[in-house]
Amino acid sequence: MTANDSYLDLNLDPDLVSRRAPILVFSGQSNRPLAQAICDNLGIPLGKSRTEKFTNDNLIVHYEESLREGDVFIVQSFSTPVSDAIMELMLMIDAAKSASAGRVTAVIPYYSYARSDKKDSPRISIAGRLVADLLQEAGADRVLTMTLHAPQVHGFFKVPVDHLSADVVLSQHFRAIVPDAQNGVVLAPDAGSIKRASQIAHRLDAGLAMVDKQRLSDMEVSPRALIGDVNGKTVFIVDDEISTAGSLIETVGIARSMGAKDVYVGVTHGVYTGPAIERIAALDVTQVASTNTVLVSEEKIREAGGKLAVLDVAPHFANAIRNIHTGESVSTLFT
Amino acid sequence: MTANDSYLDLNLDPDLVSRRAPILVFSGQSNRPLAQAICDNLGIPLGKSRTEKFTNDNLIVHYEESLREGDVFIVQSFSTPVSDAIMELMLMIDAAKSASAGRVTAVIPYYSYARSDKKDSPRISIAGRLVADLLQEAGADRVLTMTLHAPQVHGFFKVPVDHLSADVVLSQHFRAIVPDAQNGVVLAPDAGSIKRASQIAHRLDAGLAMVDKQRLSDMEVSPRALIGDVNGKTVFIVDDEISTAGSLIETVGIARSMGAKDVYVGVTHGVYTGPAIERIAALDVTQVASTNTVLVSEEKIREAGGKLAVLDVAPHFANAIRNIHTGESVSTLFT
Amino acid sequence: MTANDSYLDLNLDPDLVSRRAPILVFSGQSNRPLAQAICDNLGIPLGKSRTEKFTNDNLIVHYEESLREGDVFIVQSFSTPVSDAIMELMLMIDAAKSASAGRVTAVIPYYSYARSDKKDSPRISIAGRLVADLLQEAGADRVLTMTLHAPQVHGFFKVPVDHLSADVVLSQHFRAIVPDAQNGVVLAPDAGSIKRASQIAHRLDAGLAMVDKQRLSDMEVSPRALIGDVNGKTVFIVDDEISTAGSLIETVGIARSMGAKDVYVGVTHGVYTGPAIERIAALDVTQVASTNTVLVSEEKIREAGGKLAVLDVAPHFANAIRNIHTGESVSTLFT
Amino acid sequence: MTANDSYLDLNLDPDLVSRRAPILVFSGQSNRPLAQAICDNLGIPLGKSRTEKFTNDNLIVHYEESLREGDVFIVQSFSTPVSDAIMELMLMIDAAKSASAGRVTAVIPYYSYARSDKKDSPRISIAGRLVADLLQEAGADRVLTMTLHAPQVHGFFKVPVDHLSADVVLSQHFRAIVPDAQNGVVLAPDAGSIKRASQIAHRLDAGLAMVDKQRLSDMEVSPRALIGDVNGKTVFIVDDEISTAGSLIETVGIARSMGAKDVYVGVTHGVYTGPAIERIAALDVTQVASTNTVLVSEEKIREAGGKLAVLDVAPHFANAIRNIHTGESVSTLFT
Amino acid sequence: MTANDSYLDLNLDPDLVSRRAPILVFSGQSNRPLAQAICDNLGIPLGKSRTEKFTNDNLIVHYEESLREGDVFIVQSFSTPVSDAIMELMLMIDAAKSASAGRVTAVIPYYSYARSDKKDSPRISIAGRLVADLLQEAGADRVLTMTLHAPQVHGFFKVPVDHLSADVVLSQHFRAIVPDAQNGVVLAPDAGSIKRASQIAHRLDAGLAMVDKQRLSDMEVSPRALIGDVNGKTVFIVDDEISTAGSLIETVGIARSMGAKDVYVGVTHGVYTGPAIERIAALDVTQVASTNTVLVSEEKIREAGGKLAVLDVAPHFANAIRNIHTGESVSTLFT
Amino acid sequence: MTANDSYLDLNLDPDLVSRRAPILVFSGQSNRPLAQAICDNLGIPLGKSRTEKFTNDNLIVHYEESLREGDVFIVQSFSTPVSDAIMELMLMIDAAKSASAGRVTAVIPYYSYARSDKKDSPRISIAGRLVADLLQEAGADRVLTMTLHAPQVHGFFKVPVDHLSADVVLSQHFRAIVPDAQNGVVLAPDAGSIKRASQIAHRLDAGLAMVDKQRLSDMEVSPRALIGDVNGKTVFIVDDEISTAGSLIETVGIARSMGAKDVYVGVTHGVYTGPAIERIAALDVTQVASTNTVLVSEEKIREAGGKLAVLDVAPHFANAIRNIHTGESVSTLFT
Repeated sequence: MTANDSYLDLNLDPDLVSRRAPILVFSGQSNRPLAQAICDNLGIPLGKSRTEKFTNDNLIVHYEESLREGDVFIVQSFSTPVSDAIMELMLMIDAAKSASAGRVTAVIPYYSYARSDKKDSPRISIAGRLVADLLQEAGADRVLTMTLHAPQVHGFFKVPVDHLSADVVLSQHFRAIVPDAQNGVVLAPDAGSIKRASQIAHRLDAGLAMVDKQRLSDMEVSPRALIGDVNGKTVFIVDDEISTAGSLIETVGIARSMGAKDVYVGVTHGVYTGPAIERIAALDVTQVASTNTVLVSEEKIREAGGKLAVLDVAPHFANAIRNIHTGESVSTLFT
Repeated sequence: MTANDSYLDLNLDPDLVSRRAPILVFSGQSNRPLAQAICDNLGIPLGKSRTEKFTNDNLIVHYEESLREGDVFIVQSFSTPVSDAIMELMLMIDAAKSASAGRVTAVIPYYSYARSDKKDSPRISIAGRLVADLLQEAGADRVLTMTLHAPQVHGFFKVPVDHLSADVVLSQHFRAIVPDAQNGVVLAPDAGSIKRASQIAHRLDAGLAMVDKQRLSDMEVSPRALIGDVNGKTVFIVDDEISTAGSLIETVGIARSMGAKDVYVGVTHGVYTGPAIERIAALDVTQVASTNTVLVSEEKIREAGGKLAVLDVAPHFANAIRNIHTGESVSTLFT
Repeated sequence: MTANDSYLDLNLDPDLVSRRAPILVFSGQSNRPLAQAICDNLGIPLGKSRTEKFTNDNLIVHYEESLREGDVFIVQSFSTPVSDAIMELMLMIDAAKSASAGRVTAVIPYYSYARSDKKDSPRISIAGRLVADLLQEAGADRVLTMTLHAPQVHGFFKVPVDHLSADVVLSQHFRAIVPDAQNGVVLAPDAGSIKRASQIAHRLDAGLAMVDKQRLSDMEVSPRALIGDVNGKTVFIVDDEISTAGSLIETVGIARSMGAKDVYVGVTHGVYTGPAIERIAALDVTQVASTNTVLVSEEKIREAGGKLAVLDVAPHFANAIRNIHTGESVSTLFT
Repeated sequence: MTANDSYLDLNLDPDLVSRRAPILVFSGQSNRPLAQAICDNLGIPLGKSRTEKFTNDNLIVHYEESLREGDVFIVQSFSTPVSDAIMELMLMIDAAKSASAGRVTAVIPYYSYARSDKKDSPRISIAGRLVADLLQEAGADRVLTMTLHAPQVHGFFKVPVDHLSADVVLSQHFRAIVPDAQNGVVLAPDAGSIKRASQIAHRLDAGLAMVDKQRLSDMEVSPRALIGDVNGKTVFIVDDEISTAGSLIETVGIARSMGAKDVYVGVTHGVYTGPAIERIAALDVTQVASTNTVLVSEEKIREAGGKLAVLDVAPHFANAIRNIHTGESVSTLFT
Repeated sequence: MTANDSYLDLNLDPDLVSRRAPILVFSGQSNRPLAQAICDNLGIPLGKSRTEKFTNDNLIVHYEESLREGDVFIVQSFSTPVSDAIMELMLMIDAAKSASAGRVTAVIPYYSYARSDKKDSPRISIAGRLVADLLQEAGADRVLTMTLHAPQVHGFFKVPVDHLSADVVLSQHFRAIVPDAQNGVVLAPDAGSIKRASQIAHRLDAGLAMVDKQRLSDMEVSPRALIGDVNGKTVFIVDDEISTAGSLIETVGIARSMGAKDVYVGVTHGVYTGPAIERIAALDVTQVASTNTVLVSEEKIREAGGKLAVLDVAPHFANAIRNIHTGESVSTLFT
Repeated sequence: MTANDSYLDLNLDPDLVSRRAPILVFSGQSNRPLAQAICDNLGIPLGKSRTEKFTNDNLIVHYEESLREGDVFIVQSFSTPVSDAIMELMLMIDAAKSASAGRVTAVIPYYSYARSDKKDSPRISIAGRLVADLLQEAGADRVLTMTLHAPQVHGFFKVPVDHLSADVVLSQHFRAIVPDAQNGVVLAPDAGSIKRASQIAHRLDAGLAMVDKQRLSDMEVSPRALIGDVNGKTVFIVDDEISTAGSLIETVGIARSMGAKDVYVGVTHGVYTGPAIERIAALDVTQVASTNTVLVSEEKIREAGGKLAVLDVAPHFANAIRNIHTGESVSTLFT
């Protein structure tokens, strides 16, 4: 089936489609393989652009094809080096607007500053809001992202935000590799991830449990802190992202100490910094699954010794981009 | 004496204080007793203003004293009728700016639209963000509020937001009336209130439990849905607000069916609409405590048959206003 | 003739028409019958939307069909309860923009806050300007309204405002029921309505008179205050709106005391609050005519004892919406 | 009494006054004598600034003293050449902001674009709103003006507008030169000036009349068009401004043909362009009085043959500036 | 070849072209012949509009055809009287937006305030930035201009700026009238014009020289100040504009004193104010060439005694407008 | 002593000073030694703040003292890693505003994106403008910087920009180490630096020359390209910055090939990336001097083998900060 066929499947008015400006998808440097995969799913070539660094470390962005009046999507994850990724995205948005793009949608598979959404202390910047303000100041007309750490970050933007979730991908994956998943328990590593855990538990028809981190003394993990029952059961730890895997080790340890049978881990964003891969290789879990919102190198996958699974979300982004382009609802994609 | 000493001694550089514009506190119609109580705590009279309704239902606001260059605080809870409360607050802010107020802080003890912070469905307004935008468009320079349902709503505002919590007030109250509170369990009625429950549990050194509402079938409450253990224990149900008390009845029912000994309820905002008071009077709980962020009539207190306790947060708002005025940190008030 | 035919009549490029997004008309709660009548005139169904009130009196708006890239018109009069009407309209605009509506026109048949356009006293909000700012902040791209009390309110908006007048409707009505209208006198109840009175007098080719309210002592009406001559003549009192009819009684009294033969009243907005209907039933006038910009209940019409006439402006709004949609000038509709 | 004394009279907190930034008054080129007179009333020197024209007709503005953190007032009337006056004012505001002025108030004694406040035809700019937007974009923090043609122009500005009226000055002048003014009639030349006429009639305790221009055929003046009675009476024609005096001739003609005894004319802004002075010299009126909001040359006064009186409004602007500076209400100056 | 043919030549998708809104070109008063010439090149009639001056010197703009959803271009040079030219352009932009133009491009062949781009002294307005802000505030969506004095002025605008250069026109002209131009030297009159001089030298394959004005004493011209060698050569003096020709006399004098053989002058904007024409007639140069960005009267051309050549840039503006309309890159026009 | 005297004596009204908020200077990570040196010159401690990186590479900023109502200056050069430097500065500004700083001045000794000020090609972002927009969106109230590569970048900012120049520092240094500097020649490496070169030549009373890079073939350096005469003279090459020193090698080569005696180099910003230090060590020049706007490590200075001189500009920044704080003109510091 070609991309064109799928338009027909979606019951679009063909006349409406034919007179639209073409979709143009460009990519920053942070995750070009994902951008390419999205384009492959859309059946279009990846847009030609180039980002250079001057000798004084300044970035400069070149588009090598016309953007005028196009429906432009720029794919950029906020992965290491994050400041460069954000600056490059803003320069690309600004340049696209200067080049008279009709509409610019920032596609940010991993919006890392979402974590800072709460004003933890009185003199700390609410960085998630600031980054949202900056992207809009640079000219973003829409945003497409996946599983913001705090879904309320939606509210940071005045421009429309479409928000994909990795819940379906993770649930389907768990069900595929654990046939009796409904007898297992989904474990939230802290209060902040209980909503997501609850939703996946619902999809798997499994139980629910939570680690109450506030109850732990500073450095010590107490088994009392686990609320719910995991004894003798398959445990699915779900979270938004893994960086150094430090808190994951802790959660796995609690689950094990409370009698968990098998442990599976599923997160949206596999950031895997510092000792993460080494730790995962040594961790007493069956598998750690994450999506390709953040680029995971082949080397890391190898070093994890078979424990790392990378799930492809490019089809979901491609569908969302197509729906945004044709004016269909993005949210109906995943119900 | 060093500058630092004087901060500790008087909390204020006297020279700094003497040359400030005076604090001016005005009140909308929604909760004048709270505004008066705040002024009593500050030792100043409540500012003179008047709001009329034209015969065509249009509101008109009059200030009856000069606001020029003053440090103006306008107290208004978003309680029934909410649209009038919001419109009146915006008219008061706008009029204060037109009258050359130096700075206008919207004091919103109960910011009810915070609940709509999540984009539940694709075509629903993110009302919390919109109301924040409107207040800023009207001219609000700062916001002071209490226990936003979703703390992330902070991010909706570009202007600084100071955020009081009723956690201390509720915890002190529970400890005062239940001496062995540390043997009890704090119960979160759903995943959304688990963070608050966890914090109060920490203050009381009590246990934690949660109702997993997603696991219930449509109309039926299943005991399996309670995660954690309340059997034979004093249970403290904590939540952000009570409207009709419908969901409270459900939570109490689950707690009872799981063997709870005594049940206490503590919420920040006692909205008490529709059948709420009648239901509370009939409810199998020892006490329902809420604060005076929303005005509760004497009649309602009477009708609740001794079960309703209203805790005074005026001193906390007065302190926060004083700190905002003198440039101290508001957040240090409650640690 | 179908709506489509009328496009051809207007000599539009049919190719241009065929590739437009469809007109989508939605309605708030304040005057759904008018919105339905407008849609009937346009030959399209009224858009599906729903507004609920949470138990805490918060409004929530749902669109039940896709708005993406549509040319959306939202009909809402600012009639009692006005604050709810304004909040609902802002929520609907905001939700429409979030749902990627191509353009949102606020259709406000009765923009009641227009009355507050003058800064009566130094510390009163210019509410008309504030409401205009809020509507634009919420996302309104255009405004369509009728007979703003002060036509200068146009200037409050940066977005284009199209302004219909009820002058034609009222003049035609007077001429139809008073064949020798040209021998009558149009009476302006105060200086503020003299321009409108003058225009209608011109259309009827009738005389002009005015009540000079400033010349009256506080509670007493003096015949000297009427400038011009009404003795023995049919008098047409024209004004922008009637709320409680208090000032109408006064004006009729002056006209009668100066020898008026018959008295007819014509206003754009029949708000009819409080004792208005009772007063009109008892008033020494032949007829009070107003338009359906504000919904007048059947009950009120009955209680007025045959004195109330409601003139239909839906065709005018339908024409204006069609012209806005196709890019024709709205102002040419009524010359 | 010195300017300093008047501070004490106003009962200001002397401590508050002493720590204010000084008032700095600058002047554009349009009416430097008025600016100087205002400064004389304030007891301060006129600020040093210079405006040059490059050889390519571009304006350049220099401030020759420090403005940093000052309370800056810039006096500029929108008189011929108007575009230069507006551009110069915007350049002066912008330069003042760049030079870190603490606050910039645009003092516009004659805001001529106010006349265009109504959208006369569908494709004409609402220039009054545009000029207001531009002044605010340039950086104006406040506006002080006199008798805007349409008081609703207030609403064009988001920044606070203080609005002086020449009513008191004109009324006092009429009463001083016509001892039995209360037996006279104030005549409004058209419907648009009836409100002002009514207010002055009230101050003089005189009668009121109006010319209904709509009733006239194109070039012909019909006596029927005068509503009210001027026969045998002293007539005070009041209006906002006189440009070419064409419409004034018409109004005087009507008044005369209806039997007026003496005719006095009073306007706020004496623009006197084209044949105005010649016409006034030949006009059958006792006196034409206007204020010095627009600079009237000695030559024009001479040529008018004793018929022109220029009333000084500098004390009123000085008072208003002082009140704005000290935070008093401007509107209380003239009640 | 018709304009339509050229669309085909540019390989545009004909379907894309056919459904665009038509190009609408209007003109302010400053250079209507250029606007007409542009329209002739585009093969379309000049749009009908009219600008009047009220008797109080206020401008009023009327469009006499529908602009709704059109792709509107407004041609206005900032030539004497400059303030009127800017005000008229802003009024035209604002009126176009109010009349629902789809997009408004300000075509400013001569943007004279560009000269003030540097903050020469601390209290002087950066007028170029201010004028850019005002144009955008008025509603300009794009800007098209030629050879801004300081190309960095691009940065003043947030909206896209397309920037034509007269380099090609001047170079071709020089080569046409001086066959051995490659043996000549291009002379920059000061450091600020060296970049332009260098580019034209490159196009002519000629030498380069510069006058170092800082080295001259106040009133005296020293031959040492010329850097490079012009002895015995044909000299091409190139600059951005000529106003009074004062600095041109100086530059020619230096070139002559250093042994220049023939002197040709080429500038983009021939402003020719004050004594300019008289001076040029008397100047020891073969020819002064400028473009028609500024209207040069027939009288001036005559008075210059054959020394003035006016080069037509209308085809370049027409091409740029067509490319902006069809979404092609403007910058590719002149490489 | 009059107030005026005290301005002369102390440059400050003591009463004015005493009631100001204190100066608070904070530093980002890019050049803390310069920030410390500025504070030493001001006689105040460097403000306490901390920037961390989360494990996911997100930056988080903490202020460890109160900023409320303070006059805050944040020192940050845009040196490698530049994106981190910009993001950190924006986070610090935003956090300072959230913490109610009275005013925030971004002190950017090296504003590296200034280089991108020209729109080199049609689809490239004007990064200098974008970065300026972002800084203002983040909340910067003022900017203080040194020798922007393109002084016109001033115009990018709406907020006031104070602009220091290193010309005095470099000129004094050259004169100190080359007593007969007036016999030398200042050489501009390209047309873009001719203005600066001309100013320094003026200060040294030396000659002027320029390299015309456009005249060179692609890879080859031709002696003809040097305009002016350096034969047998001491040459001072001045430029804005040195990154890899590639273009410097070229310029030195041309100067040498044209007979230069001694070569000195002076630049504002010594960025020294990649092979720069190695190249300078091997370069046929006497000395390369730059300022400490960019931090140059001790190691680099050592490796340059005595050829590198770092000039201290901290006193100039300290003076400028003091003048901004007290409301004096910054530009008068360096005349």
